[in-house]
Amino acid sequence: MAVATEVCVLGVGLIGGSLLRALGPERAFGWNRSAAGARAASAAGFDVSTDLADTLRRAARADALVVVGVPLPALGAVLDAVAEHAPRIALTDVVSVKGPVLAAVRARGLGGRFVGGHPMAGNAHSGWDATDPDLFRGATWLVAADDDADPDTWSRVARLAVGCGARVVSATSDQHDSAVARISHLGHVLAEALALAGGRGGDLALALAAGSFRDGTRVAGTSPDLVRAICEPNRDALLDVLDECLADLGAARESLAARGTLGALVDDGHRARRAYEDAQVGPSREEQARGGQADAGPVKVEHAPVPVTPGAPGWLEALREAGAAGLEVRPAG
Amino acid sequence: MAVATEVCVLGVGLIGGSLLRALGPERAFGWNRSAAGARAASAAGFDVSTDLADTLRRAARADALVVVGVPLPALGAVLDAVAEHAPRIALTDVVSVKGPVLAAVRARGLGGRFVGGHPMAGNAHSGWDATDPDLFRGATWLVAADDDADPDTWSRVARLAVGCGARVVSATSDQHDSAVARISHLGHVLAEALALAGGRGGDLALALAAGSFRDGTRVAGTSPDLVRAICEPNRDALLDVLDECLADLGAARESLAARGTLGALVDDGHRARRAYEDAQVGPSREEQARGGQADAGPVKVEHAPVPVTPGAPGWLEALREAGAAGLEVRPAG
Repeated sequence: MAVATEVCVLGVGLIGGSLLRALGPERAFGWNRSAAGARAASAAGFDVSTDLADTLRRAARADALVVVGVPLPALGAVLDAVAEHAPRIALTDVVSVKGPVLAAVRARGLGGRFVGGHPMAGNAHSGWDATDPDLFRGATWLVAADDDADPDTWSRVARLAVGCGARVVSATSDQHDSAVARISHLGHVLAEALALAGGRGGDLALALAAGSFRDGTRVAGTSPDLVRAICEPNRDALLDVLDECLADLGAARESLAARGTLGALVDDGHRARRAYEDAQVGPSREEQARGGQADAGPVKVEHAPVPVTPGAPGWLEALREAGAAGLEVRPAG
Repeated sequence: MAVATEVCVLGVGLIGGSLLRALGPERAFGWNRSAAGARAASAAGFDVSTDLADTLRRAARADALVVVGVPLPALGAVLDAVAEHAPRIALTDVVSVKGPVLAAVRARGLGGRFVGGHPMAGNAHSGWDATDPDLFRGATWLVAADDDADPDTWSRVARLAVGCGARVVSATSDQHDSAVARISHLGHVLAEALALAGGRGGDLALALAAGSFRDGTRVAGTSPDLVRAICEPNRDALLDVLDECLADLGAARESLAARGTLGALVDDGHRARRAYEDAQVGPSREEQARGGQADAGPVKVEHAPVPVTPGAPGWLEALREAGAAGLEVRPAG
């Protein structure tokens, strides 16, 4: 498998557009629904069309890796076009929630060469103007390890992620969705609730708000439509973790009312935050030398990526085992 | 009232020690319970004793402004010593919650020259090593406007805050405690809950955690004892806002379960975050020119501080009115 596979990006918003820029115009081309987005990408030197059928036929001829980067509500229409114009194409996506994407792909008979993906990167902005070729540098990129995953596509997606400076972590789509309900979607919900509670305190409360309120409500600055598009498709997993969280908060509330103390929540939360801090791996020295991001933090323990040979016996189990341990994986060879 | 009043700081941890450093050794002296903290401050050129009685007698002789900077559990013993050795001293504090401090002060007959304070500044660390002379620069410093507040002490506390680069906002102790339950204490509780939810997802979840989890759980990195010491004395106000928040989260949960959408919470939270962002005032150009902090953000609308003459008819109402509007106040003249 050549590293320099061609890549076709469908949707050049924040994530898709940043991917295009990370790859450069020699390796990547794309499509965008809005002419304005396509024009902005073209003005930056990229070959981005508004003709989806034509773009997909070109991808099929080149055996490009197609990356679906449209919001979930637009996914169905794009997959319909893939099924019509490039039904045998190697396919991945950069949509947040993985279960619904997998189901939509399989429903159209496109599962044979599909491997889902999710770069854990973003910011509060959207659209081409917010794109950044270094958006994925040092980020974790989930590359799915679902049953019957195509080893060749898995390799191509993993190499794409590595080529963008990301660390590949692998898990099933269900495992991913459960995890992001915990570390992303619940955080959105709590940030909205905290912002609302502060706002109800009026101008005095907002004048007294300091760093903890600023940080705790940061993602409430994301547009409501985008927050809903990210969180709501993950309903079942989010409901589970919301119920857990409501129980934790209710117990702390009862403890405070009855005994004047927030109880175990503070110790347990602190322990979890410490575990998170300990799990953080800074960019490797090699990545830093290439001119990585600012504010990347210190280099901590560096685990060498676990090498896995896609298609070898037990390769999916090996991917999932490494993922459950939070370890980076790389296609061997 | 001379600006260069002497200041006696009791407790040279993060807040008290930073205050000492902001004032400099010519204007400020202090006391610390632990010899290690006193030694560290002395090594930095400050006159910090471990003899509380002696320090308070010196403060009384100089008619210094005494700033109580010990954690709430240590407050009673310190106030007992004030009542014994400097019962007529001008007194303020930098403890988070204001109602319990006011009650403890009044219980010892020290209310006549007491005006509570709360600089809205801090970080996840504690002790002398974490002190920073610029900690208060650009921060909001609550100076209480309780019934029967002594105008002279109010002026001295406000000038102290301004001298440290802070913006003075005024409100009653009850108004303050209700506001900080919303914009600080609830945030601590939610950060702990988010960290705990993430931690329950194991190494995979922590490996996928990105910026929103990092920011949303940041204050869960604060030591559990300190979190409890900050939040639990504000029990009644925190219970009120926790109940509100649980109702908001419960409604979003029900909406997600029944209709697949998080509902109004996302719009309401986003609107509140926007209102918070709009209320942010960067450091003034003058403050920036003096060499303010990095990451202070852009200068936005600058309201001139509302001038209030302490002791003039209606001065407390004027302070509270400005505070309710989130406006900075300054002692006139």
